[in-house]
Amino acid sequence: MNARFITFEGGEGAGKSTQIQLTADFLREQGIEVVVTREPGGTQCAENVRDLLVRDTGYTFTPKAELALIYGARVDHTEKVIQPALESGSWVLCDRYADSSRVYQGIAQNVGLKTVQALHDALLEGFEPDITFFIDVPVDTGLNRTQSRDGDEDRFENMGTSFHEKIRNGFLKISDKNARFSIIDGTQDIDNVFSQIKSVLKAYV
Amino acid sequence: MNARFITFEGGEGAGKSTQIQLTADFLREQGIEVVVTREPGGTQCAENVRDLLVRDTGYTFTPKAELALIYGARVDHTEKVIQPALESGSWVLCDRYADSSRVYQGIAQNVGLKTVQALHDALLEGFEPDITFFIDVPVDTGLNRTQSRDGDEDRFENMGTSFHEKIRNGFLKISDKNARFSIIDGTQDIDNVFSQIKSVLKAYV
Repeated sequence: MNARFITFEGGEGAGKSTQIQLTADFLREQGIEVVVTREPGGTQCAENVRDLLVRDTGYTFTPKAELALIYGARVDHTEKVIQPALESGSWVLCDRYADSSRVYQGIAQNVGLKTVQALHDALLEGFEPDITFFIDVPVDTGLNRTQSRDGDEDRFENMGTSFHEKIRNGFLKISDKNARFSIIDGTQDIDNVFSQIKSVLKAYV
Repeated sequence: MNARFITFEGGEGAGKSTQIQLTADFLREQGIEVVVTREPGGTQCAENVRDLLVRDTGYTFTPKAELALIYGARVDHTEKVIQPALESGSWVLCDRYADSSRVYQGIAQNVGLKTVQALHDALLEGFEPDITFFIDVPVDTGLNRTQSRDGDEDRFENMGTSFHEKIRNGFLKISDKNARFSIIDGTQDIDNVFSQIKSVLKAYV
């Protein structure tokens, strides 16, 4: 059984963290070693970049600069954590990966999918997840869920509804084009959302 | 008279800061508006990235990750400071720019010039300096000069002589290939170094 790199994508409040935890538990029950990680972040270096990006500090990078920074964090994370884990036989579950850059910077912030792909090719040479779950919820549902959250990582959450509609439509667009994507209906209760994920995973375990 | 983007490159202790100051004074005496800036840095966002990179924190990014981060800082700096200054008619003097990435990450840290160029093309679409001064000093001379400096930006200074030889040879290699480069003998006294720079500038002012 080959180690798999599985990513979870979605807008704010889609329920990714909960589903990642359930997926990790399920895989471990099958005797699989699992590494759970997230982006931007996943190494000390990359978490420091995350701090520069997600806090509302009053200073905002240009969208193209932000894309390059996120790729800096992603390369560090990929080379130090994700690829070594896969090579040692662990499965890797990652909360967001390159598809978030495609959608947030490439589509919603107008940097363009071509520029994102050029960076991806130059830095990661075609490395992509094996399986990607896009957990889809209507924008209002997601934003309502995030309002009860604590924390200071609120830059994207504070952007308007039309920005979040672009995010959702962007994920739907790239999900349609890539066979590794499964679109998961995130409006259902936690168990029913996970049932959809489990039915995809069963082909691999 | 077109606004010019002039960069100053060189290893540690080459004397770039002093020569940039003399160049700014000279151009201002000719009635030219001058913006003096530096990389990595030049905007608040990019200075924050610099802090992640140049301090010896115990956490080191992989070389390819570092390249992407530096490009993140560079894009922010270019889009917010360098290009607007040039468009308003100011000349821009910059302490290091993309050639430092070519030499430090591309050559000395083995990321490859092709990867640096792919990032440059994707993010900056061929934007390059009009004039580049490579201030050349033997490695020992440069390192001796930096030993009297204060500060905590010592990560590269602390690397061994063979690393700094790669840097010097890298700059000589790319200087040879690009007509915009002038190689300046930085071993001479300050006035004589600046005379060499001035003799190049006189074709432009």
